[in-house]
Amino acid sequence: MERFSLNQATTKYWPLPALAAGCVEAGVRQVGLWREDIQGYGVKDSRRLMDDHGLTVTSLCRGGFFHDDGWLDANRRAIEEAAMIGAPVLLLVSGGLPPGRRDLDGARARVGERIGELVPDALAAGVQLAIEPLHPMFASDRCVVSTLAQALDLAAPHPPAAVGVAVDTYHLWWDDTVWAQIERAGREDRVACFQLADWVTPLPAGVLLGRGLPGTGAADLRRFVAAVDATGFTGPIEVEVFNEALWSRPGPDILADTLTAFRSVVARE
Amino acid sequence: MERFSLNQATTKYWPLPALAAGCVEAGVRQVGLWREDIQGYGVKDSRRLMDDHGLTVTSLCRGGFFHDDGWLDANRRAIEEAAMIGAPVLLLVSGGLPPGRRDLDGARARVGERIGELVPDALAAGVQLAIEPLHPMFASDRCVVSTLAQALDLAAPHPPAAVGVAVDTYHLWWDDTVWAQIERAGREDRVACFQLADWVTPLPAGVLLGRGLPGTGAADLRRFVAAVDATGFTGPIEVEVFNEALWSRPGPDILADTLTAFRSVVARE
Repeated sequence: MERFSLNQATTKYWPLPALAAGCVEAGVRQVGLWREDIQGYGVKDSRRLMDDHGLTVTSLCRGGFFHDDGWLDANRRAIEEAAMIGAPVLLLVSGGLPPGRRDLDGARARVGERIGELVPDALAAGVQLAIEPLHPMFASDRCVVSTLAQALDLAAPHPPAAVGVAVDTYHLWWDDTVWAQIERAGREDRVACFQLADWVTPLPAGVLLGRGLPGTGAADLRRFVAAVDATGFTGPIEVEVFNEALWSRPGPDILADTLTAFRSVVARE
Repeated sequence: MERFSLNQATTKYWPLPALAAGCVEAGVRQVGLWREDIQGYGVKDSRRLMDDHGLTVTSLCRGGFFHDDGWLDANRRAIEEAAMIGAPVLLLVSGGLPPGRRDLDGARARVGERIGELVPDALAAGVQLAIEPLHPMFASDRCVVSTLAQALDLAAPHPPAAVGVAVDTYHLWWDDTVWAQIERAGREDRVACFQLADWVTPLPAGVLLGRGLPGTGAADLRRFVAAVDATGFTGPIEVEVFNEALWSRPGPDILADTLTAFRSVVARE
């Protein structure tokens, strides 16, 4: 339980002060936050809120979208906000193909170059960038980084303190090479963030909001927990579930179910 | 153009006799057929219809679903029907995880064993089985074979005359390892079927019926055509597009647009 972190996206409509109080109430000490939410509440006020409740911020979502105009300033701001909120890790979602383009390799290479440009800022801020591979169904419109192998290749030129990877079970569960790549991520000291969500079907239109609480779907989450444990990673395990039906419920109820779900896959048998 | 084959799934609601006449009218000489359609019309009558119109059947969809009860008889019937309709290739979609299971590796291994049991039937019938990797978004509920590498690994123990693989751009376009695997498929003489469809977003609910005509999406289809050509494969190139909006149009119109789309990606620049 001490490794559990509630990613705010799981309780999307729970206002930050209520979320902070609700976490304390439930014995939760760690949260992963989102930029739009802490911006809405004020980044400094959000930090104070977390501190006042004794909550540790495990990650901030997110930078990236490297093909957008203004990507450099946007990512520098994201790094600053991560430092301000006290998050050791900033998740990066690379963005999809530039409009009208089909050159995935080229798009991925450009992502790598642009991450390189952020390395000095990340080191200066003490914020580790976490390259997050998203499921291949997002490759065209959201993230050209689809596998852990690709994320590790992109991270390779940079110091681990600046660039790591995110292991999100929802995106990686289908990949038979992921186990070897998790081992590699450990060996190369790149595991920056570990997130749990389960794979449930049928997928909804747009495929973004159909994730399941851990244990409700097809992903072998226990195997992921064991594999990430085996790398020596002892950091937080976030639960991050985008699901409209879940979101429609009261925050405390979602959190209670999230904790039950977390225990069901993380508890030793 | 002589390599074009219309996969019947692209013109789902076009009755078989109209499809046959429409193909002749449009100068199309090859079709890929589906079992439920030729069963509906009668397999022998379908064969006669194809023969009478001078149409060659390039493939039959499909066998597989190896976790279902009765899989052995069902697949033997599928092989027989492929032979009866004159299709040299029977596509295999493996099926997803057995209900309540999460052991993808085990499910895939079982698919391999069961394909092995079909090899004598395939050889006797002169029908090549084509293992089709589907996009990872179908891994839990439709097909545990998600990459060309996995399909080739499953095919490896068997003679190429009995077991090959299907290269469908819709399912494989996102994979940066696919180019090396297409080369491998050529080297190992496994390319049994080559199908074109494009990747368009947003995906519809259920994600099955959102494919695009070649050239309308994000997949680098020219690169696929060049890569498959480079293996020495000179067989048919099917266009297979599942799309409800497309299906709502008259068969001849769909075929005309399909031909235009095909030329746009296959024509030498």
